[in-house]
Amino acid sequence: MSHGLFIVFEGGEGSGKSTQVERLYRRLAETQRKALPVREPGTTPLGLHLREYLKSKQPLTPESELLLFAAARAQLVADHIRPSLERGFIVMSDRFSGSTVAYQGYGRAVRRDVIDYLNDYATGGLNPDVTFLLDIDPEEGLHRVGKPQLQLALSPDASAEVGRADVEGHRRFEDQPLAFHNRVRRGYLDLAKDNPGWRTLDARLPEEELAEQVWDIVLPLLPRLTSDPPVVSTPALL
Amino acid sequence: MSHGLFIVFEGGEGSGKSTQVERLYRRLAETQRKALPVREPGTTPLGLHLREYLKSKQPLTPESELLLFAAARAQLVADHIRPSLERGFIVMSDRFSGSTVAYQGYGRAVRRDVIDYLNDYATGGLNPDVTFLLDIDPEEGLHRVGKPQLQLALSPDASAEVGRADVEGHRRFEDQPLAFHNRVRRGYLDLAKDNPGWRTLDARLPEEELAEQVWDIVLPLLPRLTSDPPVVSTPALL
Repeated sequence: MSHGLFIVFEGGEGSGKSTQVERLYRRLAETQRKALPVREPGTTPLGLHLREYLKSKQPLTPESELLLFAAARAQLVADHIRPSLERGFIVMSDRFSGSTVAYQGYGRAVRRDVIDYLNDYATGGLNPDVTFLLDIDPEEGLHRVGKPQLQLALSPDASAEVGRADVEGHRRFEDQPLAFHNRVRRGYLDLAKDNPGWRTLDARLPEEELAEQVWDIVLPLLPRLTSDPPVVSTPALL
Repeated sequence: MSHGLFIVFEGGEGSGKSTQVERLYRRLAETQRKALPVREPGTTPLGLHLREYLKSKQPLTPESELLLFAAARAQLVADHIRPSLERGFIVMSDRFSGSTVAYQGYGRAVRRDVIDYLNDYATGGLNPDVTFLLDIDPEEGLHRVGKPQLQLALSPDASAEVGRADVEGHRRFEDQPLAFHNRVRRGYLDLAKDNPGWRTLDARLPEEELAEQVWDIVLPLLPRLTSDPPVVSTPALL
């Protein structure tokens, strides 16, 4: 049914996903492949509207947060991912269903059966052909995004409760303590272990080297170039 | 567990729900009961933020719409409905889970098992003690809210597809054709038939008479007044 290729990049804060999405996109464009980069939540008007709310730090329960991400994903799949795959595009997404398992499931302790149900409903059963996990120790990732103070403020053994969103005010992911990010990382590593379509890369490597590793895995999966005149997409959707 | 009373008003466009919520609230306040009126989506910052998006007519699939309403409901239940019921308040809501069955299920043809799952998840299994269905013929209801042109523009037999939100632009409920609203009404009537907690009222009656019918049903359900000093809430949440 789908003739394109669906590639997802997952990872914690500071793992360099956006950089790798952009590098892969540029490389595909240079070799005249039809490609579309998207991000979650974002890319659609609904995704942008929800991102605005997430940034406002207004009240949000873990259940509402989960449902909002599912709504944004459903819209992104319907508007861009599925139609582009059907037209033979290589679609790259900065985050997808795996983020929900890692952040809402392992991070915020939402029940896994609910997460699987909503992921399946929001995506209509669409799974990536390959998911790159850019694995990094949260201490190093948070340092990269300029949030090293969390390491000092809170021990890694802080209560499991810290991951629950506070009804008084929603704490953004990057402001969560280290214990939260350690749980997220564990979630990602479990996903990579359980799913053959996942490839774990060491996000501490130089970005050029990571880009080469990504390319080595993507190249054999690419649809063969046909004699059709190539169409290169240059959408400004990010 | 809950010591309060949870009353919901449901009905199509122009059925007079908000009027009856307000009348009941005033009557409860006059008789010194603790009461809280809420509305969906609204009352919480998240509900208001989503309401804004719904009004923008930007793209929204039926699946995303369903998930957004679920997110707003989860937040409203967690922030206001459940805590108020636990403190013995009489909570009145302008719309609740029944609206999702009627509008997204019957109106937009979303699968019923998905709707039941999300309603249950968003409410944490909370059900109203009584739900008033203000039943009205959609032609008359739309006329009341100043949308009579729909009756002329589209026949009641317009394709069942008309209820699907258009990816190119989200059509608000009150701009849907008559066939959509007829399906919504059928959904409400089926719910009232299947659920003993529902009471169907004839929304064409004068609002004073309707308010009396509501009061006759609510009065026997009210928690007995104790000798505690009564606390009257006057929140401006609507």
